[in-house]
Amino acid sequence: MENILVEIMSNFITLTDEEKQDIAMAFPIKTFKRKDFLLEEGQRAKDSFLVVNGCIREYCIIDGEEHTNEFYTELQSILNIESISNNKPSQYNLECIEHSTVAILNAKKESQLYKKHPRFGEICRVEMEKMFGENRERYLKFKNSTPKERYLNLIKERPSLINKVPQYHLASYLGVKPETLSRIRKRISLNS
Amino acid sequence: MENILVEIMSNFITLTDEEKQDIAMAFPIKTFKRKDFLLEEGQRAKDSFLVVNGCIREYCIIDGEEHTNEFYTELQSILNIESISNNKPSQYNLECIEHSTVAILNAKKESQLYKKHPRFGEICRVEMEKMFGENRERYLKFKNSTPKERYLNLIKERPSLINKVPQYHLASYLGVKPETLSRIRKRISLNS
Repeated sequence: MENILVEIMSNFITLTDEEKQDIAMAFPIKTFKRKDFLLEEGQRAKDSFLVVNGCIREYCIIDGEEHTNEFYTELQSILNIESISNNKPSQYNLECIEHSTVAILNAKKESQLYKKHPRFGEICRVEMEKMFGENRERYLKFKNSTPKERYLNLIKERPSLINKVPQYHLASYLGVKPETLSRIRKRISLNS
Repeated sequence: MENILVEIMSNFITLTDEEKQDIAMAFPIKTFKRKDFLLEEGQRAKDSFLVVNGCIREYCIIDGEEHTNEFYTELQSILNIESISNNKPSQYNLECIEHSTVAILNAKKESQLYKKHPRFGEICRVEMEKMFGENRERYLKFKNSTPKERYLNLIKERPSLINKVPQYHLASYLGVKPETLSRIRKRISLNS
């Protein structure tokens, strides 16, 4: 199987064999078991990740309570810029909620690769812009919608999460108490 | 006065005279009056902006009601990637809430500049990463805090907004009704 990052970069430019090899060498692919951590709160992040398959939950702990920030699934990138760029301890945990395959993007190796192949940097700038836009959309959608709208939106946009993820994690992700999510689900099933 | 973008880029690298001139030419600085719009819902965005001074409010209209997404002040960038990259009509309005000076970053000119001076692209990639991180932090802070915590955080991190911005816009920005913000303010002043 070709390295997933080679595949992705090939969507933008025709890669030389040397470029393909350098990408595959720089970004190895690893598998993790359910409940394995890619990063734990307090560790200094050195890697970003690209999910090949599986599901990774990002959460933080506030006043002893877990808050689920994000679920990362196929082809989503996991960036902890705050921790990597400023060499600060991570505020988040990254836990596999199922068996997952992930490409590891070490920050140092990434920057060496851009130095050797500057045209990769340009592609990543544009991709970074795209991710920025998506993240902003997600924030505004969250802010400007009711919990019920958020849940309906999740069913529509990420239906696979609904069965994969325990209800109390989903509730936390949607910013509501588990009881509230139960009520929303009941009301939706009564109306349909 | 030197062009603000020349100043900012000079923090990263020593610019040649030609580079300085190209930046200043590509990104003109304009002033806008209170209530002027930099962009209106439905228009296709072609420019990003960097606020030199003043304050710009980003809002959208949902079910006839204005929702304030963001206030942009000194040295903040305003990116509407969704509209620019996909040539889609903007979902947002950008309105000056006071006299404002803004550098205009036309997307086409920006990409021409990166072609001519590839090292600028690398700086912008890193800056884009930083902005991505900040935006993510903002999202998670919003999601994982109560309205009162959000307000206290705003007083701490952006005190100048409190007097500059009408209360009902602030309430919308914090994701609460104006009455709720009034109550929060009253409770805080009673306790202090």
